[in-house]
Formats: sequence, structure tokens, C-alpha cells
Amino acid sequence: GALGGLGLGVWWRQQQAAIAASEADEKEEEEMGQRFMAPPVSGLRELRRRRRELRSRMELLIMETQGEVCRALAALDPGASFSVDSWERKEGGGGISCVLQDGEVFEKAGVNVSVVFGLLSEDAARQMRSRGKSLKAKDGKLPFCAMGVSSVIHPKNPHVPTMHFNYRYFEIEEADGTKQWWFGGGTDLTPTYLNEEDAVHFHKTLKEACDKHDLKLYPKYKKWCDDYFYIKHRGERRGIGGIFFDDVDSPSKEEVFQFVKSCAKAVVPCYIPIVKRHCHDSFTPEEKLWQQLRRGRYVEFNLVYDRGTKFGLLTPGSRIESILMSLPLTARWEYMHTPPESSREAEILEVLRNPRDWVH
Amino acid sequence: GALGGLGLGVWWRQQQAAIAASEADEKEEEEMGQRFMAPPVSGLRELRRRRRELRSRMELLIMETQGEVCRALAALDPGASFSVDSWERKEGGGGISCVLQDGEVFEKAGVNVSVVFGLLSEDAARQMRSRGKSLKAKDGKLPFCAMGVSSVIHPKNPHVPTMHFNYRYFEIEEADGTKQWWFGGGTDLTPTYLNEEDAVHFHKTLKEACDKHDLKLYPKYKKWCDDYFYIKHRGERRGIGGIFFDDVDSPSKEEVFQFVKSCAKAVVPCYIPIVKRHCHDSFTPEEKLWQQLRRGRYVEFNLVYDRGTKFGLLTPGSRIESILMSLPLTARWEYMHTPPESSREAEILEVLRNPRDWVH
Repeated sequence: GALGGLGLGVWWRQQQAAIAASEADEKEEEEMGQRFMAPPVSGLRELRRRRRELRSRMELLIMETQGEVCRALAALDPGASFSVDSWERKEGGGGISCVLQDGEVFEKAGVNVSVVFGLLSEDAARQMRSRGKSLKAKDGKLPFCAMGVSSVIHPKNPHVPTMHFNYRYFEIEEADGTKQWWFGGGTDLTPTYLNEEDAVHFHKTLKEACDKHDLKLYPKYKKWCDDYFYIKHRGERRGIGGIFFDDVDSPSKEEVFQFVKSCAKAVVPCYIPIVKRHCHDSFTPEEKLWQQLRRGRYVEFNLVYDRGTKFGLLTPGSRIESILMSLPLTARWEYMHTPPESSREAEILEVLRNPRDWVH
Repeated sequence: GALGGLGLGVWWRQQQAAIAASEADEKEEEEMGQRFMAPPVSGLRELRRRRRELRSRMELLIMETQGEVCRALAALDPGASFSVDSWERKEGGGGISCVLQDGEVFEKAGVNVSVVFGLLSEDAARQMRSRGKSLKAKDGKLPFCAMGVSSVIHPKNPHVPTMHFNYRYFEIEEADGTKQWWFGGGTDLTPTYLNEEDAVHFHKTLKEACDKHDLKLYPKYKKWCDDYFYIKHRGERRGIGGIFFDDVDSPSKEEVFQFVKSCAKAVVPCYIPIVKRHCHDSFTPEEKLWQQLRRGRYVEFNLVYDRGTKFGLLTPGSRIESILMSLPLTARWEYMHTPPESSREAEILEVLRNPRDWVH
């Protein structure tokens, strides 16, 4: 019969082990779920079933990162709490957007996870891949999967910098069945006023995360960050940088994933100590005004240059509220505003015009 | 001698007439100059010398329009005044930027004239011309001249709408010496709250200006305006429209110029009565907040979609402060803000989603 050559005792022990394993699974599943802000897009059970696949491991990582960051921020702003929206994308996939707005410490803090899939036009696929590699499509359409965690934190106090991070993974299947894959991401800081100690702490923490994998990574990605977050029409960077990389597909999927994981784990230690150090600093109305003008520049970069935002705005079915979560609650544009020479406002502008090295 | 066959009496009378004409010229020049905010880019004398050429007539028109609009606005905001900056463009030409900031009535009002010329790459020329006509260049460069007046007025009171207008003229010389020329422009209104009477007045005034030239123009350019000022990712227009046209080169240079002149002359009667009617309306903090959110949408349109802004940001040597003068003093972005059904906020959103006809 169905038991074949197995003795009843062996079968019995196997059954008991399977039940125990399944109970352990459920427990693990439950614990995992508690660390997340919402059930993952692909479902906990499915992710555990396909736990060896990189797509699943990346989705778990972005969910964990979202949870970690939201908990760390919420702990600093006890009066406020994150709103959590799970959303679906008609064309395939969905996401979880966590936003804390108008808190005591944070003006607007958004942490967004998205896991989307479907078919891309060759044009859209080309735009997606920064190096513009050509991709051969069957019938002009390419199956793709894109997932990532992205976040922008705008604090109230002008002495607490804005922070942004984003870690993402893409897969595109070509006509002949070959899969192209790549990772992108980065973490960067946008202070209203320069604080050298903060800048060094931030860059040092990122460098340590990179150095565990390859000593070449930090200098390369630090420069890429300075180059990417460039507001060309202003001749200024958006902030004092950090790391940025895109279209990374070597040395191997596993090694890049481990690197991305180290970067994602570094977000909280990079930023939270800086928030703690300054969130009770006193500030003047003039300092608040300068912050608002800098927020205006942030909007300029995000709407005019940021590839992720532009891609999102052009993608049919993308969730606009999640994409534009990165915009500050308030911003300001004054005609011909120029800070006086040798002021603290001029000091940060100088660094934005000529990026510095913060760690060696 | 030099007098040839002329009798002395004839010569004398001619000389006297020339002196009188030159004095009349100087007087006219002076009067003309007084109506302007600053000396024109091409110089008053030069413009008068080349007064029959369309380029000169257009430059005089945009200078006059700038003066008229600035004077009309300043009269409504007696405590504030326009700052006037004349600037030069290294590559050729320059402009005059007039800005009133943080007044009693106007939060930010900018009226900008620019007259620029030089050489364009074929790529840039293609971008400039919306229909994307190909232009044949000698050695890859095309001599061009672009001039226009453009303005955005952001009032403080949420019951006074934002207004924008822009009238412009282009010339490009191809390799074989043929000159392509075209006009573009428009005037449009962006209210925070719908006021039907204002909407009708605004559109009616524009329609009258158009109807003097061709009854087909208003309906065509009204629709073009609704289509152009579309914030695709929001599914909303920027405002309740007006007129918009681009790349117009028929029936003739003279006829298009006369039409553009009528439109430019309609700016003050379109808008000023609306400002007068509402600038002392009382408003609540909630109404001010809704205005700030709408300002955020204005920024989104201008930075993401507006062809003029994008072209300006990409043009080497363009004056960024004048281009970004169109941005409001302050703006706001709230995550997932949705006005309650049947509110006045929902009412304007409905019109922005489904444009109406205001005059027939």
C-alpha cells in the first residue's frame, strides 16, 4: 500500500517529526510576522516555502528592514505612530507603506516596501537599467520582478538631518529565458546645518558595512553617491552623501545580497544616534526657515532628477502616494536667497558644492 | 560739394526736420522707457531703429506687458514693491526679472522677460519645437533667438487664485538660411477653491481676445490648455485652465503677432478684477492648509511636466532663479490627503479631474 516497505514504527516517527516540524514552522512564521509591519506581499508561507530562493530572501530582508527602522523611529517619537497601508498593484504585486506624519520628532517619516511584477515594454526595461543594456523581448514584452525598501525621514528640528535609504533587487527575463538580475541601493544624509561629528559617524558606519565585503566598495559608492545626488541646475549636491550603487550584478548574486544585507542592517546604527543627539537641540525661527529652503532643494532633486521617482511616476499602476512619500511635509522657495558669507548656512552650501571625504 | 544740387533753404528745412524728428524720437524713447521696468535687452535705440522687424515689435510687446502687469499688481499691494534684476546671458542676450515677495496680497509674484540668442544643438532645437520637426544645421549648430514674457502670481489669500501667463517667440535659422519662426503662449488660472463667477470672467475675457482674430482659436486653445496642464500621475489638471498654444506659425507672422498681442493685453483685465474681488476675503487655517497642498501640486506640475521649466533647467547658461521664480513661496505634501465628499475641496478636485466649459 501507500506505506510501501516502511515499518509502521518508522512511519509513525516520521509523522510525529513532520507535525513537530510544522509546529516549529508555524512558530517561526509567527515570530517572523511579528517583526514585520504587515504580512509580506508574497505571503509568509510562500516565502518560507521558497526560502532558498534569492527573491524570497530579499523580500524577507526588506520586510525586516522596514520593521527595524519603523520601530527605531517610533521609539524616538512616542506620541506619534506609523500608519500602515498594504496595497495591491492591479498589474501584479503590491506593497506596504508605513508613514508617520506630524510627530514631535519627525515631520514626515516614510518607509515603503514594494514587490511588483508583470511585463515591461523594452523601452521601460531600458529605462529601468541605468547602463541601458539592451534586452531582447519576446513579443516586445519582458517579464520582470522588482522589489525594494525605500525610506525618507524628514525630522522637525533643523539640527536633525534628513535621511534617505533604498535597497532594491530586479529580475528581467529575456526572450531566450535567460534572467538578468541586479541590485541597487544606498543610504545618504541631508543636513540643514553641517555637523562634522555626525557626518563622520554616518560615513564611518557605512564604510564599516562596506569594508566587510570589499575595501573598494566604500570609496566607489561614496563617489557614486556624490555624483548621483547632484542638483545640476543648482551646482549643489542634495546632501553630504553616503553610499549609492545601481545595476550591480557581480561578483555573484549571493555576494551582492550579503553586501546589501550589511548595508540594510547599517541604516539604524547610521542614523538613530544622530537623531537622539539632536532632537532636543534648541533652534531659532531663522534656522527653521533655512531648513524649509533646503527642503525646497530636496523637492527639486526628487522631482527633476531622481531616477526612482521619475520611473515610478511613469509606471502605469504605480502607487503615487508611496512614491511621493519622499517629499517633505513643507518646503519653501525664495527668489535669490543667498546666505551671508561665513554663516553656518554658507558653510553647508560649501560642502554641498564641494563634497568632502569624511573617513579614510 | 556735399549739398549737391539742393538749395540752402531746402537743406536747412531738412536739417530742422531731422532735429525735430530726433527730438521726437528721444521723447518717444523716453516715454517708452518709462513704461518698462528696465532698459530692454536689445537697447531702446536699437529697437526703435529696427522697429519694423517682428523681433523688435515682439520685444517691445513683452517689455510693455511686463510693465503693465507689474504696475497693476503693485497697485494692489502698496506695502510691497517689485525688485528688478537685469541679467545677462554669457552665451548671448539676457533678461529682466521682476519679483514681489512676501507682500500683503501676494506671497510671490514674478514677471520675467528674457531675450536670448546664440547657437543650438540639433537635439536642443528639436526639444524646443514641440512638434519635433527636424531642422537642418550647418556644422551641427543652429543660430536661434528666443524671447518671451512669463509670469506666475501666487497670492496669499486662498480665495485669490494663482495665475500664470507666458507669451514667446522663436526663430531658428537653418543651414540653407531659411528661418523657421513660431509663437507660443497662454494664460491660465489655478484656484484653491472654485468660484464659478471668477472662472467665467477669466475664460470670457480670454475668449473675447481670441474671437477678435478667429472664432476657432478659443475652443482649440482652451482644450490645448486643459491637455497641457495635466498632472498625469495625479489624474488632475493644474488648474481650471485658460488658453495654451505652442508652435503656431500660421496664417502669417503678422496675424499671429496680432493675436499674441491681444492675449498679452488681456492679462490684466482677466486677472486683476478677480484679485480685487477676493483679496480681503476672510479665510480659515484649514483653507490656508488646502491652499498649501494645492501649491504642492503646482510644484509637481512645474518640475515634472512643464516643458518651459525642463528646457530652462537643461539649457546651459539659463538663469535658474528666473526659471524657478514660478515656484510658490511655500508648499505642502501630506501623505494620503483626501478631502471629505461634498466639501469645497472635493468640488475643485472634481473640476480638475473633469474640466468644464466656462463660456460658449
